[in-house]
Amino acid sequence: MASKEGKEKSKGAAVQLKTPKGTRDWIGADMILRDEIFTKITDVFKRHGGVPLDTPVFELKEVLAGKYGEDSRLIYDLADQGGELTALRYDLTVPFARWLAMNKVQQIKRYQIAKVYRRDQPAVARGRMREFYQCDLDIAGTYDRMIPDAEILRVVYEIFESLQEQIVIKLNHRQILDGIFAVAGVPSDKIRTISSAVDKLDKAPWADVKKEMVEEKGLEESVADRIGEYVKHNGDIPTILSLLQADATLCANSDIKQGLEDMGLLASYLDAFGVPSNKVSFDLSLCRGLDYYTGLIFEVINQPSASSSTADSNVKSSKKKGGEEIQVGSIAAGGRYDNLVGMYGKTQIPCVGISFGVDRIYTLIKAKREKEEGTSRVRETDVYVMAFGGGSFDGMLKERMRIARRLWDAGIKAEFTAKTKPRLPQQFKAAEDVPLGVILGEDESANGQVRLKVLGSGAAETDEKDRGQLVSEDDLVAEIKKLLI
Amino acid sequence: MASKEGKEKSKGAAVQLKTPKGTRDWIGADMILRDEIFTKITDVFKRHGGVPLDTPVFELKEVLAGKYGEDSRLIYDLADQGGELTALRYDLTVPFARWLAMNKVQQIKRYQIAKVYRRDQPAVARGRMREFYQCDLDIAGTYDRMIPDAEILRVVYEIFESLQEQIVIKLNHRQILDGIFAVAGVPSDKIRTISSAVDKLDKAPWADVKKEMVEEKGLEESVADRIGEYVKHNGDIPTILSLLQADATLCANSDIKQGLEDMGLLASYLDAFGVPSNKVSFDLSLCRGLDYYTGLIFEVINQPSASSSTADSNVKSSKKKGGEEIQVGSIAAGGRYDNLVGMYGKTQIPCVGISFGVDRIYTLIKAKREKEEGTSRVRETDVYVMAFGGGSFDGMLKERMRIARRLWDAGIKAEFTAKTKPRLPQQFKAAEDVPLGVILGEDESANGQVRLKVLGSGAAETDEKDRGQLVSEDDLVAEIKKLLI
Repeated sequence: MASKEGKEKSKGAAVQLKTPKGTRDWIGADMILRDEIFTKITDVFKRHGGVPLDTPVFELKEVLAGKYGEDSRLIYDLADQGGELTALRYDLTVPFARWLAMNKVQQIKRYQIAKVYRRDQPAVARGRMREFYQCDLDIAGTYDRMIPDAEILRVVYEIFESLQEQIVIKLNHRQILDGIFAVAGVPSDKIRTISSAVDKLDKAPWADVKKEMVEEKGLEESVADRIGEYVKHNGDIPTILSLLQADATLCANSDIKQGLEDMGLLASYLDAFGVPSNKVSFDLSLCRGLDYYTGLIFEVINQPSASSSTADSNVKSSKKKGGEEIQVGSIAAGGRYDNLVGMYGKTQIPCVGISFGVDRIYTLIKAKREKEEGTSRVRETDVYVMAFGGGSFDGMLKERMRIARRLWDAGIKAEFTAKTKPRLPQQFKAAEDVPLGVILGEDESANGQVRLKVLGSGAAETDEKDRGQLVSEDDLVAEIKKLLI
Repeated sequence: MASKEGKEKSKGAAVQLKTPKGTRDWIGADMILRDEIFTKITDVFKRHGGVPLDTPVFELKEVLAGKYGEDSRLIYDLADQGGELTALRYDLTVPFARWLAMNKVQQIKRYQIAKVYRRDQPAVARGRMREFYQCDLDIAGTYDRMIPDAEILRVVYEIFESLQEQIVIKLNHRQILDGIFAVAGVPSDKIRTISSAVDKLDKAPWADVKKEMVEEKGLEESVADRIGEYVKHNGDIPTILSLLQADATLCANSDIKQGLEDMGLLASYLDAFGVPSNKVSFDLSLCRGLDYYTGLIFEVINQPSASSSTADSNVKSSKKKGGEEIQVGSIAAGGRYDNLVGMYGKTQIPCVGISFGVDRIYTLIKAKREKEEGTSRVRETDVYVMAFGGGSFDGMLKERMRIARRLWDAGIKAEFTAKTKPRLPQQFKAAEDVPLGVILGEDESANGQVRLKVLGSGAAETDEKDRGQLVSEDDLVAEIKKLLI
């Protein structure tokens, strides 16, 4: 009985019409907006000498192994079908490191725009998906300190200027952070786990973070309090630098000393690059999850202007906004990773890079556009070719084809209705979001003429009295080009 | 012992540095050429009102099931990790049909450019990979006969004109083909298998195909001979049409009658669209593998000009060329499929579409370019900013940064060497494929000036006597823009 039911079910059941969990289709206006974002980002990458790279969507499993810590459980494996073990890429950084090592490339600025895959819990409204795009620029090679790092931040600045998004770049330095933990008295084997507790300060108040450090992770309370004194600070680079430089205990630590030198250089290079100091916040609570960072780390959030408030007040303001604004988390992030490439071969190649979360940027810009503009076009057609005539009218199909062909030959985006005798309202409906109409009629055609009409709001379009200006067929392309400027 | 060896191996063995079988990385000049091809193809898609679609790289397995016949074994499954069963997409047509049914879309011209996955035997030199790009345009909707079909062929023509590739579009019609098989006496249950034998005529001589039909597939020899009489014909549409129309037995078959009407309409529409008749070859041996085609089918091959020779002479000429020219097979293919969308829901939506094999087109164009031009640029940088000075020279890093910033602000693609004190030859080497150099010196800088130099072939560049024209910093952007036109 059960098996019979099962059989009937599998025979009769229609295919489930959906995309896999955490994935979506992109169509029309959404795609056009996303492509616009891609173009603006790649234009800046190219402006800085970026070389485009594309890697396969899956990698050998051993290439991805041991790179993502706990997050490895989020990797999508492909089925083993008697061949290699492979998995979908988790980010673009590890495939880049594999490519560098495989091709023994010593230096490059490379960019890549591609989808990555994480079997995480999706949160569609906030733009968190299992399949999503990343746009990465990385500078690999042995250069003088902080010069490529500053250029990466200049790239961030240029891109968000171009996207007209107000941002703050939160900065920190792994050597300063680790030095502070050491000076505060964190045992060296606890530095990474304490670091990941501190990383939660952008979402949780200090009291919760302290509780995690003391109760869950067994840190002495006095040590936690000393950490608290440091990580509450953020502000522009010179302010935080003076604060740290005034602390003799900190400056005695060689890691911190190197980190402070780096941050001083960075501030002067950002100035030379024209990155306004209010776009940058040196935030001692910023940790970044991934283990492989070794120097500067950064995270970009969208926000009207930089504040020099404490970590605690940051938490309050993000809580206050929680219900009202779209919270997308960081929209770009990255840092310096000098040891990752060496994991694949004998050669260490120092790298610094940035990854833009395009789907989150898309979510922000789309929300803004919807407020400002209403609906957007789903395709780019500029001219709709139609025909109109009386009772014995044959539809002028070949005439419409011939005119469309003339427009295509001139590179003009044009369509017509693929019917022998379409009705005029049907043609106007199809032309709804098209700016120009070319209207053919038998009388006009006999004189080698057509009518060219600017298509406005719906009502007037079927008004036969306004059928547009008479234009000779030979002048049509030129007249259209004038109107499309 | 064995297990100890195993352990040591896994501990000591370095990660294999390669991409999975049948996949490859794309970098620099190759990527730039591929993007150029994408842009030319999408420009034409947009010119015809195409709406962009992007679907996830994997689909529910049941969406792909039962669509590809024997080729289903080539589908890449993802591992089942306690969730949905999914597989990488095999083409872009089935995801499009799923999208149409899921969103109850009645009509659209949609295009999609994306990678597809087939666990086939790779043939890298000929551009056959397991991961490769397809560019598809499909017209879905109920329209009058052959109008969308003709527009798809016009799109093919425009795209290869734009790519400057000489092509022939081979055409046939499933209803004519099936009608011929029926008239020749093929039992209806053998039509598809006989069709797939005939499909091999572009690679094998008639004698081999006949042998397969008679000996392997049990067809009567007289029936095979009758098929042979028909499928040897190809030529322009009017020629083949008259040939078939003169055969009363064929014309009595209702499928053939409908097919001949369609081909007559098509010829007249292609004429209105300005597609030259020598670009098209009505080839009765063309079958196309996939089951879902219901009307017009086509395949694009690259070839200097159309010939009206017999199938046998075609085979000879492809054999003759075999060793000399790159054989990439068909570079685009498609057809009408009126029943596929109905497999997912209650509504039938007639479709006709084309798929461009971008990797094969890339292989052809790259080979041609290499003959003509030599090496290509790996990035688009237009200006390299460098500095030069005597013994106590400090490298002018911040000056170089400041000038680069000015250029970036003006949208100019510029780079500089990320070293405090780079040597001049090092800077010229980095600028090797960059057209313009801006050279900073302390004396010039004191006067608010820099030198602007057109970078030519290697030898002259380190010649100190030609250090370019003196330009004031404020005029630099304008001077560069003049040179870059």
